[in-house]
Amino acid sequence: MSANDETPAKKSPYPLASRGSKEGRPSEIAVGGFSFGGPRIVVIAGPCAVESPEQIMTIAKIVKGMGATMLRGGAFKPRSSPYSFQGLEGAGLGYLKAAGTENGMPVVSEIMDARHVPIFLEHDVDVLQVGARNMQNFTLLKELGKLKKPILFKRGAGSTVEEWLCAAEYILYGGNPNVILCERGINTFETATRATLDISAVPVLKHATHLPVIVDPSHAAGRPDIIPALAKAAVAVGADGLIMEVHHRPNDAMCDGKQAVLPEDFSILMDALRNVAPAVGRSV
Amino acid sequence: MSANDETPAKKSPYPLASRGSKEGRPSEIAVGGFSFGGPRIVVIAGPCAVESPEQIMTIAKIVKGMGATMLRGGAFKPRSSPYSFQGLEGAGLGYLKAAGTENGMPVVSEIMDARHVPIFLEHDVDVLQVGARNMQNFTLLKELGKLKKPILFKRGAGSTVEEWLCAAEYILYGGNPNVILCERGINTFETATRATLDISAVPVLKHATHLPVIVDPSHAAGRPDIIPALAKAAVAVGADGLIMEVHHRPNDAMCDGKQAVLPEDFSILMDALRNVAPAVGRSV
Amino acid sequence: MSANDETPAKKSPYPLASRGSKEGRPSEIAVGGFSFGGPRIVVIAGPCAVESPEQIMTIAKIVKGMGATMLRGGAFKPRSSPYSFQGLEGAGLGYLKAAGTENGMPVVSEIMDARHVPIFLEHDVDVLQVGARNMQNFTLLKELGKLKKPILFKRGAGSTVEEWLCAAEYILYGGNPNVILCERGINTFETATRATLDISAVPVLKHATHLPVIVDPSHAAGRPDIIPALAKAAVAVGADGLIMEVHHRPNDAMCDGKQAVLPEDFSILMDALRNVAPAVGRSV
Amino acid sequence: MSANDETPAKKSPYPLASRGSKEGRPSEIAVGGFSFGGPRIVVIAGPCAVESPEQIMTIAKIVKGMGATMLRGGAFKPRSSPYSFQGLEGAGLGYLKAAGTENGMPVVSEIMDARHVPIFLEHDVDVLQVGARNMQNFTLLKELGKLKKPILFKRGAGSTVEEWLCAAEYILYGGNPNVILCERGINTFETATRATLDISAVPVLKHATHLPVIVDPSHAAGRPDIIPALAKAAVAVGADGLIMEVHHRPNDAMCDGKQAVLPEDFSILMDALRNVAPAVGRSV
Repeated sequence: MSANDETPAKKSPYPLASRGSKEGRPSEIAVGGFSFGGPRIVVIAGPCAVESPEQIMTIAKIVKGMGATMLRGGAFKPRSSPYSFQGLEGAGLGYLKAAGTENGMPVVSEIMDARHVPIFLEHDVDVLQVGARNMQNFTLLKELGKLKKPILFKRGAGSTVEEWLCAAEYILYGGNPNVILCERGINTFETATRATLDISAVPVLKHATHLPVIVDPSHAAGRPDIIPALAKAAVAVGADGLIMEVHHRPNDAMCDGKQAVLPEDFSILMDALRNVAPAVGRSV
Repeated sequence: MSANDETPAKKSPYPLASRGSKEGRPSEIAVGGFSFGGPRIVVIAGPCAVESPEQIMTIAKIVKGMGATMLRGGAFKPRSSPYSFQGLEGAGLGYLKAAGTENGMPVVSEIMDARHVPIFLEHDVDVLQVGARNMQNFTLLKELGKLKKPILFKRGAGSTVEEWLCAAEYILYGGNPNVILCERGINTFETATRATLDISAVPVLKHATHLPVIVDPSHAAGRPDIIPALAKAAVAVGADGLIMEVHHRPNDAMCDGKQAVLPEDFSILMDALRNVAPAVGRSV
Repeated sequence: MSANDETPAKKSPYPLASRGSKEGRPSEIAVGGFSFGGPRIVVIAGPCAVESPEQIMTIAKIVKGMGATMLRGGAFKPRSSPYSFQGLEGAGLGYLKAAGTENGMPVVSEIMDARHVPIFLEHDVDVLQVGARNMQNFTLLKELGKLKKPILFKRGAGSTVEEWLCAAEYILYGGNPNVILCERGINTFETATRATLDISAVPVLKHATHLPVIVDPSHAAGRPDIIPALAKAAVAVGADGLIMEVHHRPNDAMCDGKQAVLPEDFSILMDALRNVAPAVGRSV
Repeated sequence: MSANDETPAKKSPYPLASRGSKEGRPSEIAVGGFSFGGPRIVVIAGPCAVESPEQIMTIAKIVKGMGATMLRGGAFKPRSSPYSFQGLEGAGLGYLKAAGTENGMPVVSEIMDARHVPIFLEHDVDVLQVGARNMQNFTLLKELGKLKKPILFKRGAGSTVEEWLCAAEYILYGGNPNVILCERGINTFETATRATLDISAVPVLKHATHLPVIVDPSHAAGRPDIIPALAKAAVAVGADGLIMEVHHRPNDAMCDGKQAVLPEDFSILMDALRNVAPAVGRSV
């Protein structure tokens, strides 16, 4: 059993996720007026956490103006410490959605608890994110399998590609075919970066599954100086999208400020992606 | 910030878990007539999953007769694949508790979802286990912080000791002081074992926290032939207890049969532990 | 002390390798008519091992015709098992150099033993490679520090970027400034690939050192199907070159045949690189 | 192909090292009046580096008086940085041997270069150590295969048990059957210790090979406070010996002082081992 497996669907450990189940055709997952897995690279940008209505509206305008496709912002935050800022919860989702609507951007936010599904539906969050720490929270995955909303499904930092696809299978098996995989780095002995971005996972997944795959260079790097280079690599390697943290005042950010990209650097990065994407037959 | 930290409690990232918070004294957590963290090593044994009333009763009698202190058995199973046996759920907890009561053994079983707390309380499960995959399922941890039941808190296979203690802090901060840590192996490049048992984590924790620490050699090894050696090492290194999978018919087991120890080998192992424990000032 | 360090040269653990030592300017290392670290991406291709005069001549013609810049081929092979093919040694170097000369390509081959330096000089091997297993073979590094020949210096699969730069410092400190770093994957828990290509190491190194950096996608992947994607990512992320294994009859290869790219796929890959390189201001 | 393999010797990737090659009997390797692999645990102690005749003589007397069996001390040091103390070389071997002879202790010291074999023979170093960084320095291994001197063969920090046994096979295949394996920790994401001691490797090796296995808790821990606990675990798990760094003035040590055990703690540790060893049928 291996993530490299292209045997017929019924023998795969993840028959619904396997590439064979779609006769080798990749899936496209529509959100707003675009789709994950289509020719256009989806660029999701925004702050780590929604901090206030003004903060998320400001950042939304900035990243929209620079070409981002979707808006991100956490309202329920999975923080390593109970003493860290835990998010604005329902109110945060409201501010996020308002900023997205105002700027014509679908929004994505992380859900940590099956009991919060109604709040996410009430605020019409366009894409629900499962974070790395919940990749094998199977009760959450089963609940998300009952929805039709697209799920942005992050890889666990200690999980293999195979375990990740088996976990995605929980959502598909529950009845929700709209799973977008997101590589965000794995834990290794290297300390120069927060995690080690497993760039190879993208082409490995392109052989193993029909699901779209995006990359989160922000959490992998944990430092802003190398994020542009990683974003370009992700597009070149074949990723269908990017999710990145952008903040106009990173030193005041309530969460992960030190890995946020500044607006001026995000603008330069978007220009760079406009060069790289066509070189691999895509657009931004 | 490091797991090696003995600075005053208020500066620690995990002030309630830190050793300094108890002025250097270890905590004892009472369950039934014994305690975790006392001079006697707690030996928890039983099958991976409760499969039937007869199966759990049979194994309970066997392990009790050989000297095990507590009975384990999963009723809600966190399986990597949605197509694997998911457990007998509430009925399984009932069979487990009946087998424990009949044999004078407190019982432990894994809880995966905050919504299941009432079922665990209804069946009076003595110790609630949080599995490796849920170590950073913070909504679950917050719910468990509201209870007084002891929590057997397994380390995530991709998590550092520091992240583990910060996660334990969620339970303590919620108001439940009864957390028992359980080392069960971390993910590394070595493939001769299912995970790499981080035996050093035990003395590292003894310096960093007042909480009791036990070891699960079964999940670390993933093969029965080396489990007795690892169990002896765990006692010698200073662990307060062991949790091991024992099955009388491992080839028929519905879960993890290939890492289960046979009763005859468990008996030999218990005799061996009766030799090793006194050598480090403990008993079994 | 961290690989992210840009403090003044005298405080760095690797003062000669640090970017500060060159006032922030990158080094260029000339070989034949081109250079590592210049605007043109250096593409090194060839078989894992030199197997015969005909084999290396055939492959040299193929890869030269498709645009490769340099020829690789092992004559002294560091094989995990003593029962595996160990290389043609001095004769192999002769066949390699002849194939390189005939096709106008400088050649690179791995040196495993300080006592072999004269053989490499006798055959005028243009670049000497230090393999991953010898990254901390300090006696070898000290000998190579006495030469002026460029050294292709691979990262150890279990070594951090910081350890790698400290090891490079041995060569520089010995008096040889011509060190080309080569990222080739690190050992992690992921088994879908032979090693995990640490693509982030490239921009991390670009901040930390003035030395050129190339990428070996072949050894990282261990499977040919994802090598083209990784090669494109390497160029996009900012690497100064690539080294790849190409074989016209991989099933008959005496070494690592299963990760060799076929000539027809190498041709397609070169065309793809000709698209990606200009998108990041480079050429192939 | 797996380290768990007990198939007939001729099918093993390491036929001479495999347990099957000795019909399941473990090897004993005699040094001085004792042997590795016999009932008595071999305790090797001494400083990281030989610093002066007085220093090594002082420490030799101390550890001998406390029950150590063999004396360690580095004369050729594989330091991560070229600016670190590189050892006293030949003179250091002389001081080491003199201290060993005076105190009736065989000595072990690390060899980094095949060209140094004559110096080690001249000083009659009893056991030659191959360090972790040279585990796959195959030219060195081939040279050591020509000797009869016992080789203390450390595991590479990034190498699997299987790769380690394949590397040991080089020495055996060369004609030297006297290989003692030494587990010293592997590189993982955990930062509370310098490396992660893979205690499971000991029983894995006991199933896979007839060669003796010892443990180095000093390099695995990188901090003295947990070394006694790890040493007890190593004896309990079935190791045939221990190698530990002891220094009477660790703050003045020229190498690795911060992981050295003080004489008074070493004495307490030896007493503890005298309790644990009989519990597993051994003596110290």
